[in-house]
Amino acid sequence: MTTEDGETAETFEEYADLGATTGDAMEIAETSMDRVRELVPDETLGDRVRQKAVHATGDPEFQHLVRFSGADESAAVRAGARAVLDERPIVTDITMVKAGVTGRGHGCPVRKAIGNGSELAERTGMTRTAASVLELDRRGVYDDAVAVVGNAPTAALALADCVEDGTRPAVVVATPVGFVKAAKSRQRVREVAREYGVPAITTVGRRGGSGLAAGLTNELVHVASDARDGELSLTRADDRTAPREEGTDRS
Amino acid sequence: MTTEDGETAETFEEYADLGATTGDAMEIAETSMDRVRELVPDETLGDRVRQKAVHATGDPEFQHLVRFSGADESAAVRAGARAVLDERPIVTDITMVKAGVTGRGHGCPVRKAIGNGSELAERTGMTRTAASVLELDRRGVYDDAVAVVGNAPTAALALADCVEDGTRPAVVVATPVGFVKAAKSRQRVREVAREYGVPAITTVGRRGGSGLAAGLTNELVHVASDARDGELSLTRADDRTAPREEGTDRS
Repeated sequence: MTTEDGETAETFEEYADLGATTGDAMEIAETSMDRVRELVPDETLGDRVRQKAVHATGDPEFQHLVRFSGADESAAVRAGARAVLDERPIVTDITMVKAGVTGRGHGCPVRKAIGNGSELAERTGMTRTAASVLELDRRGVYDDAVAVVGNAPTAALALADCVEDGTRPAVVVATPVGFVKAAKSRQRVREVAREYGVPAITTVGRRGGSGLAAGLTNELVHVASDARDGELSLTRADDRTAPREEGTDRS
Repeated sequence: MTTEDGETAETFEEYADLGATTGDAMEIAETSMDRVRELVPDETLGDRVRQKAVHATGDPEFQHLVRFSGADESAAVRAGARAVLDERPIVTDITMVKAGVTGRGHGCPVRKAIGNGSELAERTGMTRTAASVLELDRRGVYDDAVAVVGNAPTAALALADCVEDGTRPAVVVATPVGFVKAAKSRQRVREVAREYGVPAITTVGRRGGSGLAAGLTNELVHVASDARDGELSLTRADDRTAPREEGTDRS
């Protein structure tokens, strides 16, 4: 991922989530990622996700808060990138996360859960985001999708319930934020991810949020773009069933 | 702001940015703010903003990173709330921040800068967000507006240039994130805010982001709602020209 002089504008684009298309923006995006690479290793696909976490939050500590559920650390990244190449839906919990997902470099429909299931929410008293996840799941939207939760812990909990009930997202990206249920909801996502072999990228602790979830999702898009361009390979035996490598799951 | 048993659902709503309308959501929002109040003082309007910063980021440290520019610490909060009551535009830098601004409790038009000024960006090479701010400013959009920058340092720098050139937002909320120009851009906002008497709420350091900017903006809406309900008063002599109180400006 080293950026060298003389590369075209198109090459620089991968470093910017939110639309670096001008000279100034590319310079900022490039310099910003250079700074991040001074702080975070740059060897594996997992490192790319850790770099993006630091980039999106402005906080070097975040490299230590990312967790990968899957056969090995890179499995969730590969699974997500493959789903992007397959143009599977990217489904976010709320509008804000959807707004942060890049519109470039992929052909995936991007949709949000919120706005669905309002009748269920009113009837049961559950949160609107949780109800929206259950409603979309009822319609089969989450199978093989990139399922993203950036804000609502109850959406992550609902998604975990769906996995327990048989839904199989291609990958789950879950970084809900807050003081109530946020850390626990991500822990629960990791538990069902491990039990049912669903690749997942999550964070530990109370911190997280929409910007982080969108950033990590965009990194899956960037990895997919690099794979499309032949810069890396996503081929490997089925990650979901491959034996877990010692020491790679740090969740 | 103490929440007591027996209060109505409507009372709870103020604690939720992103739409707590069901029983579960209100309980989470309430419990979450209770936790935050254990960590952050609950005396002044400034405290409310600090609480929201902690709530939005999930990080208690953020209470120490908020800065207020104005006659005193609460002046920027009052100015922002008054602008909300006056139904002035809330103008964000990017779509993601706009998506995070609550649609309830105010009659302000909410618009984003990005998408404007593309010709300027192409011609000059400046970032699209910076060009979009300059273009909206050319149309007079920022005068007396709630000007919000959550993502792009160059948008904050452009906004500071506009203030220097005579634009007077009602309040600036600036929390762009990142490793390049983010901290410096907020420092520059504080400098022009002080020099030209523009109320501003900013953060120090590299961290920040869209979720934080939206959360702080929503707190201005909540303060306005409380003022509308007679729970607090925003009246005070012109904050912009009042003498600075010793020890209150910590920027």
